[in-house]
Amino acid sequence: MTASVLIKAEPLRAFAADIFRKAGLADDQAEITAEVLVWADLRGHPSHGVIRIPLYCGWVESGLINVEAMPKAVMVKGAVVKVDGESAIGPAAMIAAADAGIVRAREHAAAWVLVQNHSHAGAIGYYAQRVAAQGFAAVVMSALRPMMAYHGTRGAAVSTNPIAIAMPGGPLLDMSTAASSRGKLGVAKATGRPLPPGIALDRDGRPTTDPHAAVTLTPMAGPKGAGLSLMIECLTSVALGRPLIAPALDHPALRDDVRQNSLVMAMDVSAIGASDVLAGNLAALTRAIKAQPRADGFDEIRMPGERGDREYERRSRDGIPVPAKTWQQITAVATRFGVAAPDEVNR
Amino acid sequence: MTASVLIKAEPLRAFAADIFRKAGLADDQAEITAEVLVWADLRGHPSHGVIRIPLYCGWVESGLINVEAMPKAVMVKGAVVKVDGESAIGPAAMIAAADAGIVRAREHAAAWVLVQNHSHAGAIGYYAQRVAAQGFAAVVMSALRPMMAYHGTRGAAVSTNPIAIAMPGGPLLDMSTAASSRGKLGVAKATGRPLPPGIALDRDGRPTTDPHAAVTLTPMAGPKGAGLSLMIECLTSVALGRPLIAPALDHPALRDDVRQNSLVMAMDVSAIGASDVLAGNLAALTRAIKAQPRADGFDEIRMPGERGDREYERRSRDGIPVPAKTWQQITAVATRFGVAAPDEVNR
Repeated sequence: MTASVLIKAEPLRAFAADIFRKAGLADDQAEITAEVLVWADLRGHPSHGVIRIPLYCGWVESGLINVEAMPKAVMVKGAVVKVDGESAIGPAAMIAAADAGIVRAREHAAAWVLVQNHSHAGAIGYYAQRVAAQGFAAVVMSALRPMMAYHGTRGAAVSTNPIAIAMPGGPLLDMSTAASSRGKLGVAKATGRPLPPGIALDRDGRPTTDPHAAVTLTPMAGPKGAGLSLMIECLTSVALGRPLIAPALDHPALRDDVRQNSLVMAMDVSAIGASDVLAGNLAALTRAIKAQPRADGFDEIRMPGERGDREYERRSRDGIPVPAKTWQQITAVATRFGVAAPDEVNR
Repeated sequence: MTASVLIKAEPLRAFAADIFRKAGLADDQAEITAEVLVWADLRGHPSHGVIRIPLYCGWVESGLINVEAMPKAVMVKGAVVKVDGESAIGPAAMIAAADAGIVRAREHAAAWVLVQNHSHAGAIGYYAQRVAAQGFAAVVMSALRPMMAYHGTRGAAVSTNPIAIAMPGGPLLDMSTAASSRGKLGVAKATGRPLPPGIALDRDGRPTTDPHAAVTLTPMAGPKGAGLSLMIECLTSVALGRPLIAPALDHPALRDDVRQNSLVMAMDVSAIGASDVLAGNLAALTRAIKAQPRADGFDEIRMPGERGDREYERRSRDGIPVPAKTWQQITAVATRFGVAAPDEVNR
């Protein structure tokens, strides 16, 4: 039995877009969602890749995702934009926010775009990189419902709220505030592999390495990760007047809410006057960091996003490995929608 | 022998300001520096408190701090401001940046203020709270010379670059990207207490708990803290065309450089339309988090900054405990400048 199938990126993207179209999404929303998922797979982050297709389709079918949504700016004041996601599929709302940020930052040299009410954003590094590609320093954050312990709590109290930071030409940091990502739990459940110790608690608040018993993630660095996650909720949901955490803690029925709120910040590096030396300074930083004496057990020192860049290149060439169980779940959805699966790469 | 002396906040602030004035700083710069240091002591963060007086005075005397500096905006474009610190003492430059951020954010609803070339900023939570007090969501970051391992390096490759986030009325997160702060090393050296395990490496890159052998701090959560620190260097120093890390790694003589670059971001919460419900939503979040079932060993669950708020209140009333050894070092500097030490509180 094959542990995984290998699919080329372009057919996989077209396949995913077809599924989303058949599920009811508008063309552009189906395309960008497929693009964002396959981007994560290409970079070697399967937890945010096509493994999410069945979940997203389920949300469309249950009405949690509004296929009529047209995310757009509903308020603009100076460098600040508020985008209403209208319960859209995450990538459709996030792209609207990222692009609004690019437009605003061109005009005001910086932008601060809040976007409310969208489903799972996917890998938010995608939007940070998209903004950075236009010559801006970019910071993206996203807030979700409780799924991680806060420092000192027994169960889930905050989320794994991620933060991504990108510079034009790289590097790209994309990290959750958890000791590990919730998506990794999903991958572990799919592959059956045990979790690393210290990243999850069971139903009773005790540490566990069994992916099937894991219920609550732990914050990175204890109070720091918990605090950063809580402040991301404040900078997004609370600033928008759309809190996610407090209502979900007060009303357990809201714990399965899929809504997110996000923030996209951009700063035009050319406004500061150092854009002519930016690429050189980033290259010098990369070279200096990578040249440092290595600790025992390290073959190399990597910049944020470097492994993802390398994987992106390799997988763009060779194809994307999808675990057999994941592929089976995706093709089951596709079959239901009458979408034919792409060919596997012969190995 | 008394382990510490107890000094009231106001006399301590006046004492510190007098020392800085006698050291050569202008009145306003002496005052704000004393204010920022005593604020940290009041909040129970002695590592960023008056313990730094001898260090700062040494930098003034050696010329690393320019007492003639008048930090000011040298470039304004839309919501972006560049402040040149002119090698000023940190708090003088940071206050200029925070206040420029407040002015810009009033006009453009958001602001992104970069400030270059200042000495140690002190506790950057001070500036985040100052900006937040004007009704803005605030994010402050600061970049320093290498003093922390990057993920996989044997020695110092990045800094403990801190980030602070504040909302109007609280909470206030102020954290370094290290597993622990460099200031805590200083306190441990002063008190002679061993370090917690896992926060520092010795000269050979091996873990140590001996504060006198500790040379390099470790990043929080391994690659996450290291990556976040590196991106703060990018968002500040590299964006400004004033890199700190790469030159210091290439030229060991620059490793003692005291210059920092910082970023102050502000967003006018009223621009988003939710400021009328902001206080209520923050209170609901605080209540919900603190009401969660506690893990074994926790007496209470605290919001970011809550312990500091409580300590601030208590120490404002009762006085600030200063370790005897620290007090001896400060009064030695004061004596040299002919400044009389304030009375101790009788205990």
